Amino acid sequence: MQSTTSSPALLEALQWRYATKQFDPTRRLDDVTLSTLEQALVLAASSGGLQPWKFIIVSDPEIKAQLVPVMFGQPQARDASQVVVFAAHAQYSAQEVDRYIAHTAAVRNVPVGELEAFRQMLLGGIVEAKNEAARFDWAARQTYIALGTLLTSAALLGVDACPMEGFDAAGVDDLLGLREQGLRSTVICSIGYRSAEDPYAALPKVRFPAEEVIQHL
Amino acid sequence: MQSTTSSPALLEALQWRYATKQFDPTRRLDDVTLSTLEQALVLAASSGGLQPWKFIIVSDPEIKAQLVPVMFGQPQARDASQVVVFAAHAQYSAQEVDRYIAHTAAVRNVPVGELEAFRQMLLGGIVEAKNEAARFDWAARQTYIALGTLLTSAALLGVDACPMEGFDAAGVDDLLGLREQGLRSTVICSIGYRSAEDPYAALPKVRFPAEEVIQHL
Repeated sequence: MQSTTSSPALLEALQWRYATKQFDPTRRLDDVTLSTLEQALVLAASSGGLQPWKFIIVSDPEIKAQLVPVMFGQPQARDASQVVVFAAHAQYSAQEVDRYIAHTAAVRNVPVGELEAFRQMLLGGIVEAKNEAARFDWAARQTYIALGTLLTSAALLGVDACPMEGFDAAGVDDLLGLREQGLRSTVICSIGYRSAEDPYAALPKVRFPAEEVIQHL
Repeated sequence: MQSTTSSPALLEALQWRYATKQFDPTRRLDDVTLSTLEQALVLAASSGGLQPWKFIIVSDPEIKAQLVPVMFGQPQARDASQVVVFAAHAQYSAQEVDRYIAHTAAVRNVPVGELEAFRQMLLGGIVEAKNEAARFDWAARQTYIALGTLLTSAALLGVDACPMEGFDAAGVDDLLGLREQGLRSTVICSIGYRSAEDPYAALPKVRFPAEEVIQHL
């Protein structure tokens, strides 16, 4: 494949993005843009391709408003066009691996038995090697790959975003009915368009010098 | 900002990417492309902007070869153009927050004292609220945002990548001298160009149907 974006354009988009503090409450993502970001989430990479996650896209103004108190009063959830709640499987299990293997066999039109070595690798490396806490931690990390994918995709489409870890996870899980689905929220990202009044938009981006965070060997 | 990439182009790039199993050992990233991906890593988002990470970019053929045994014999490390090792701070501390606050004050040209409320929020939310294990887990999750940023950026530039969790983290840390730097490897991503012979390149991508991983509220 040829590159679809030039190096300067990519870096311009990544420089342009920032953790938006004030969204313009009157602006909404159009259907194509929202659908594109949803597909970017679906296409996000995960360990073994296992996708131990669910993405809850909240557009309903009432539910967005209800999110504010469990997000320590941060107004982004209310004013953003959508709030994306990243949730990881609370108890990732062998059953989930089997569901994935069955789906893989169907998509690739091969007998399930042909995927047995792959299945054993996934079971051994993820389900059997980790206790329940470590499996949730593993699943949670995968949701952060999806978050990085969403943030980069949004920037390239000119969509603003605010990733947030500061929230009452149990409260969010209760509000959205995640527990009953075997899910736990890990991180939240509001998406929409920055308010012209957000003073944070104009602040210089703070990054450590490249030589401090990148080592060449 | 206008979008720099169209929705179809973004999705085409995300569809095109796959976890590359065989890299073309004769192809190397050019300097501009490698530098762009490094800058994308530097610009990756992190909680509070704290960047509790380091990215080790291995180009040296000898070190790449030495990585293979601690990566369970997977040949990607040897054949790829570069191996990017993501490392998180092993013991994220108040000192690190202070270093970040000092840097922020310098970049934004404000007195450190003006950032005291922000500093207290970071100390309270991350350093004091978490024990050492939870702080490492938090830092490790941040490196996965950077991984998602790298994978998406690489795809847009037409660069192949293979993210890998299957490796002996202690062995990698020893080999690259990460322990002495207070770092622990979390995930690895080889980057380069796919071999024409990689049979995995042609396989259909396996994703659960959107309605199973996306919920609209």
